[in-house]
Amino acid sequence: MTIKSEEVNINTRFEGDIVDITQQVQKAISKSRLSDGIACVFVPGATGAVTTIEYESGLLQDMPAALDRLFPRDITYQHQLRWHDGNGHSHVRASFIGPSITVPFKEKKLILGTWQQIVFLELDNSARRRKIIVQMLGE
Amino acid sequence: MTIKSEEVNINTRFEGDIVDITQQVQKAISKSRLSDGIACVFVPGATGAVTTIEYESGLLQDMPAALDRLFPRDITYQHQLRWHDGNGHSHVRASFIGPSITVPFKEKKLILGTWQQIVFLELDNSARRRKIIVQMLGE
Amino acid sequence: MTIKSEEVNINTRFEGDIVDITQQVQKAISKSRLSDGIACVFVPGATGAVTTIEYESGLLQDMPAALDRLFPRDITYQHQLRWHDGNGHSHVRASFIGPSITVPFKEKKLILGTWQQIVFLELDNSARRRKIIVQMLGE
Repeated sequence: MTIKSEEVNINTRFEGDIVDITQQVQKAISKSRLSDGIACVFVPGATGAVTTIEYESGLLQDMPAALDRLFPRDITYQHQLRWHDGNGHSHVRASFIGPSITVPFKEKKLILGTWQQIVFLELDNSARRRKIIVQMLGE
Repeated sequence: MTIKSEEVNINTRFEGDIVDITQQVQKAISKSRLSDGIACVFVPGATGAVTTIEYESGLLQDMPAALDRLFPRDITYQHQLRWHDGNGHSHVRASFIGPSITVPFKEKKLILGTWQQIVFLELDNSARRRKIIVQMLGE
Repeated sequence: MTIKSEEVNINTRFEGDIVDITQQVQKAISKSRLSDGIACVFVPGATGAVTTIEYESGLLQDMPAALDRLFPRDITYQHQLRWHDGNGHSHVRASFIGPSITVPFKEKKLILGTWQQIVFLELDNSARRRKIIVQMLGE
């Protein structure tokens, strides 16, 4: 059993952007030469999140729409009153969705559903350069 | 340190079904002969989720009621407009709750609260056969 | 590769209390003498949760406010009708946020964003003594 670490670097384009990082995580596993294990996918940062979704254009609109409905931008956030950076809602959304998922792999392949992709959610209020950590443990 | 993998296979009965899989995960650990480690419980699929809950009949109603309130079926989903499979809300719910949890075990036993069970949530709009992966790392 | 386990013990002060446990998790890693790996942070209990957040006073109010808005105390919970312990909303909140996160570490240090802390959320309806498990795998 050993451990390998990779970074996935992406540029998000706008608030609500959902980026499919499945291929990058799979490449990290291939490069690691590990056969069976887990990949911990983690966002270092408090205004982004990782989860899985069926990556198709309908849901790329439905997911941000749900976030807007549940955590509106136009209500009062104490974070905004203190820091005036316009992203109180972003922080609360990120803490709800969470910064990490752990995905198993077997025979060098991620175990995912046919219609399931690993995604980064840009929850901050502008495009950003993002680094995501893929920590792999296996043998 | 080594890695072991098991599948938990269940049949869900209806949308909103919550299935207690604690015993199956515990059995996987017992079968692995590992003493201390972590069990990564992962759903390969984009319309189901795993979490923990106190498995009692009240909450088995309260949890689906909260999902219905926060992610209604009868609002417009772009996923529905494209694919007409009636489960746009299911996908969004699954991405919010998430596909994975990681549970520690010690001396061959899951470390859980007294009133805490590991559950699969059926979020799709019909009963389904479901496979859940239990990837165990430990020694 | 080896496994180490530590407990973080805290006293929460009230419902909605958010406790920064980053230093305790970092200490557990330092004590483990592991260099690179993952730390699985897990709550044994069904009315608390772990996530990450920027730990500043605005968000310490915004996060509980969002929980109150999305999962009100004053609606009917079947859990409450059965058990009369006043915390139906606590259970549903905990299952949404989730009991576990997995955080990578490298060269003996947690990989976190500059403004990102690991936190325990007290979702139960009173102050409680809480034990959180930190299961570390690495080398």
